[in-house]
Formats: sequence, C-alpha cells, structure tokens
Amino acid sequence: MTLAFDIYGTLINTSGVFDSIKKLIGEKVEGFNQLWRTKQLEYSFRRAAMNDYVDFSVCTKQALEYACLFYKVDLEEHQKASLMEEYKVLPAFDDVKKNLERLRSEGHQLYAFSNGSKEAIKGLLINAGLVDHFDGMISVEEQQVFKPSPIVYQHVLDVTSSIKETTYLISSNPFDVLGAKAFGLQSIWVQRSKESILDPWEYQPNRIISTLSGLTFTK
Amino acid sequence: MTLAFDIYGTLINTSGVFDSIKKLIGEKVEGFNQLWRTKQLEYSFRRAAMNDYVDFSVCTKQALEYACLFYKVDLEEHQKASLMEEYKVLPAFDDVKKNLERLRSEGHQLYAFSNGSKEAIKGLLINAGLVDHFDGMISVEEQQVFKPSPIVYQHVLDVTSSIKETTYLISSNPFDVLGAKAFGLQSIWVQRSKESILDPWEYQPNRIISTLSGLTFTK
Repeated sequence: MTLAFDIYGTLINTSGVFDSIKKLIGEKVEGFNQLWRTKQLEYSFRRAAMNDYVDFSVCTKQALEYACLFYKVDLEEHQKASLMEEYKVLPAFDDVKKNLERLRSEGHQLYAFSNGSKEAIKGLLINAGLVDHFDGMISVEEQQVFKPSPIVYQHVLDVTSSIKETTYLISSNPFDVLGAKAFGLQSIWVQRSKESILDPWEYQPNRIISTLSGLTFTK
Repeated sequence: MTLAFDIYGTLINTSGVFDSIKKLIGEKVEGFNQLWRTKQLEYSFRRAAMNDYVDFSVCTKQALEYACLFYKVDLEEHQKASLMEEYKVLPAFDDVKKNLERLRSEGHQLYAFSNGSKEAIKGLLINAGLVDHFDGMISVEEQQVFKPSPIVYQHVLDVTSSIKETTYLISSNPFDVLGAKAFGLQSIWVQRSKESILDPWEYQPNRIISTLSGLTFTK
C-alpha cells in the first residue's frame, strides 16, 4: 500500500506549545491554544477557496495574531516569534516510530504529506528522528493550494505513482480524512482524543483507529 | 455604484434563532449557537476548497448535527427541522429598510448576494419586506461554489455588468470582506458587534461602518 501520513496532530504532538503559552498568558491557555489552531485551519481553508496561497506559517502567524486580539493579550513580537519557533521542534507521539518501522518492514511505501512547507516538514521530521522512516515528503507547497483541495490529493497519486484503490491518507484531522475520501482515496482517521468529533458529512473514512498500532493491512 | 449586500448577519439578524435554541437546550445556548454558525461557515469554506458544492442548507444542517454531537444534545429530527425552518423567516436589522431606500433613491444599483440558494434568499427577503428594494438577487448556487471563491465575486461583476472599481461588497462577515478585496472588488465591513474582529490578514476593507447609515458615496 501507499500510506500518506498527515503530520501536525497525527504524527507530531502539537500540544507541546501548550506549556509555553501557559507561561505567557496563564489560565486562558486552553481557549487560546484551541482558537489559534482553529483559526490556523480556517485560514488555510479560506486561502484554498480563495486560490490565494501563502506559506502555511503565514496562516499560523495570522491565526496567532487573531487569538491575541480575541483574548486581548498583548504579546511582544519576540514572544510571538518564540511560539512560532516551537512549531518547528515538536515531538512525535509515542506510537509513531515503532509503527512506521513495522509498516515499512511489511513492505508499504510511506510518505509524509502536509500543509507545511517542505522545509518545515523536513525540519520537524529530522528533529523528531523520523526523517529516515519515509520514502518521501510531499508538501502542498508544490501545488500552492492547501488541503482539502482535490489538487493536493491528486498530487499524492502523481508523486507516488499510485492508484486510488491502494492509497491511504492517514490523519487525525477529520477535514483531511473527509477531503481525501471525497476525492476518492482510501482514508483512516486516527482519533487521538476521545473528544475529537468526525464531521457528520456524507463521507466516512474506511477505518477509525486510536493509535498507529491499529494500522494493519491484509494483502 | 454597484452595491452587493451580503444577507445573513449583514441585513438579516440571525440571532433570532437564539431564543428557540434556548428553549430546547437551556443555558448552553450561547456556545451552541456560536459553534453552529462557526461550523456552518467552516463547512462552506471546506466545500469551496474541495470543489464539492452542496446547497448551503446542507452545511447549516450538518453544522447543527456537529453542535449536537459536541454538546451531547439529543435533539429529535422534528426539533432540528424546526430550528432549520427559522433560518427562513429571520427579521432584518432596524437600519436596513430605510438605508436601502435611501441608497436606491441616490441612484445606486442594489443586489442581494448570498451563500444561500436563490429560493432561500427570495423567501428571506420577501418575509422581511425587502425584496422590492433590490435590482436583483445573486446566489452562489449559480456557480456552484461558496464565498470566498474568486469565482463568485467575478460572477457579481458578470451579472451586474459592472467593473471592479465601482463595485462594493458590503458584509458583516470578515471572510467575505477580505475575499472580495483580495479578488479586487471594493469592500465595506459592517461591524455589527464591537466584539467582532477583522482577521489580521494583508487585506483591508475600504471602510468600516457600524450601521448602514454610514454607507455614503461621493460621486
């Protein structure tokens, strides 16, 4: 099989930023962190709809500015820069390394596939000790449009020389799982938190798992 | 000038649904109502990015289902249907009627321009006594893609035989105001609530007003 793994939230734990935000803004941390992430994604959806691509880090930065406005938090530029830096060195979830190794030993082709720039993906994976576990890295940067545009899912097929029937998108992000499915790929939702909700759309992933140990394929 | 007015939240007050939700679910009403609206828009952005158009009422319904899942509220189908019905008969804001009359008497061309279907727009405007105040109604249904796709803003120009320099998008929704501006239209943000935040993107509306009385144009 060809397995395309989403990175942020799926392989890499973004909640590491949580502690740094708490130091800066205290008890509002939970709402702030959630709003930052929600707006980051909303901005990427709108940019995709607008055909107005920017580097994903611009969405992240502008979403941070929005969260500051909403919570009336007056961070200095160097504090924002420091939060942004953390997005470059986040740790992997515990189940990632061993399961990537297992899946490769089983003969599958593994790709990292992200809204992040190629540079950002590479940096993250090197830092997390995962870069050698993939056959390749695919950034939406190459097509200049964000997930869940069908253009980027087609690009996965093109880059990996694969067909829809044997290509899986693996993501903890429901929008990604449903986007891939609507396009025609196979998709698996990694429900990293019990509170995470799959959007009640007309699409369903092929499977729902809670850790990458559940990622098994019969030949 | 050619003036294209957004409808939901700009001319028509969607907070009327608030009381009905309160009767059904009690104190969670504020969060529930906000989440419903947020998801409705998110779903329309994602559908636009996915090139996967559905009637806007599908986004509204699926967002309602999401809010029920999130708040663990078990509404019956007839209760959901009843909330959906309310979206068809919402009242206009107080400043709308007189200012539409004034703007028309000043010689401007007025259009209603919405994510809603043509049928939904028409029903709303008839109910609110506004349908005769417009030169026409434009639904994204005609192009089968939601705001803020550049396709729908181009469609406004095509339908109204207007040019970018003298065509204004007037909306309380920041995503709409910035989407129109990025495309090249003129845009005016109606800040209906002091808490409403304009996204800190690289675009700015031509003007910010708090009611439609501020909508004045020098020839």
